[in-house]
Amino acid sequence: MKNIIEAMNSRYATKKFDTAKKLSNTELNELLEVLRLSPSSFGLQLWKFVVVANPEIRKELQKASYGQPQVSEASHLIVFTVPKNIDDHLVDEYIKSVAEVRNIPIENLGEYATMIKGFLSGLNSEQRIEWATKQAYIALGVLVASAAVMSIDVAPMEGFDSKKFDELLGLNKMGLVSKVIAAVGFRAKDDPATSEKKVRFPKEKVIIEI
Amino acid sequence: MKNIIEAMNSRYATKKFDTAKKLSNTELNELLEVLRLSPSSFGLQLWKFVVVANPEIRKELQKASYGQPQVSEASHLIVFTVPKNIDDHLVDEYIKSVAEVRNIPIENLGEYATMIKGFLSGLNSEQRIEWATKQAYIALGVLVASAAVMSIDVAPMEGFDSKKFDELLGLNKMGLVSKVIAAVGFRAKDDPATSEKKVRFPKEKVIIEI
Repeated sequence: MKNIIEAMNSRYATKKFDTAKKLSNTELNELLEVLRLSPSSFGLQLWKFVVVANPEIRKELQKASYGQPQVSEASHLIVFTVPKNIDDHLVDEYIKSVAEVRNIPIENLGEYATMIKGFLSGLNSEQRIEWATKQAYIALGVLVASAAVMSIDVAPMEGFDSKKFDELLGLNKMGLVSKVIAAVGFRAKDDPATSEKKVRFPKEKVIIEI
Repeated sequence: MKNIIEAMNSRYATKKFDTAKKLSNTELNELLEVLRLSPSSFGLQLWKFVVVANPEIRKELQKASYGQPQVSEASHLIVFTVPKNIDDHLVDEYIKSVAEVRNIPIENLGEYATMIKGFLSGLNSEQRIEWATKQAYIALGVLVASAAVMSIDVAPMEGFDSKKFDELLGLNKMGLVSKVIAAVGFRAKDDPATSEKKVRFPKEKVIIEI
């Protein structure tokens, strides 16, 4: 495993993936496990991670992503989705899971459930989706850093037609909406982006110490 | 450095920090460096990370965070902020930086600049802030995973009064708005949350393979 700074310096938004090099099952499962373990507000986990390997569907998804080749060429594509309808039902589901995992009576969690529901009641349905989406972006960040230390390449992408993705992946029927995607695999040796210098503002410009 | 799965399993939203144990300069600088290296849409880096060590200000911030003790007790508090006004000026600043770092004439980047400005023109000022905030959440995810492999504890928090934070930290004058915070340091040995089992839905519930 790489040192984290070295890892974050070596990674970049891969433009050309090695189409012959696939993630091993172990590698893929490790990435999915870090996604599963990602933190989220209240611990609610308002997300589902859709892993697309199927090459025919990937070709169609590429067309719905301004033709960006990473969508079909990377080993796997991960689509970060959130529920279309975020309501108390999902809070109850989570609270039930807390009670089970920690082996405590569900009644003892009433106050916590009420607090979360109170928070939700202050948001309209669009704001709830925005809020869940931000949590999904935490998972995306966790994926980026984790893959980097594992020497796996990730290209996070916002440039895709979310509605077409939802159709192509059958997300509508599952009550999900796609929010951001990440192509995951290994850089091609001749990816021209590999040799480009990373552009980041200097520390003085982005860090304020108080 | 810990294995990433082990690291993500050991981490948790720390409730009680060891007030005597501070991050070393090296540790703090490494965390700030991973934040600086985090990816963002178009590479724009529409963020500033405000690191608060000052104990008096931390006490005030705690009052503006429902009294949550981590805000004042952790070694450091990191406030993720984005600019209030996101306009073409910030795109130009970034493009200038790309030209400098990669040593290419700025004219060659005209098309890229136009594309980013075209994207921005489709968003109103509130949507631009929402969009920048999502990028800041990527950095938060990168921080969580990076700190975890370094055995540093992080409590990400949304429960704070953003307006009061902006006032207390002088962010208004800097044209910034606070969006999410993270208390960073080391867990207290007697943090009751340490012994609580992590609650995550099983893989079958959050991963969909296509």
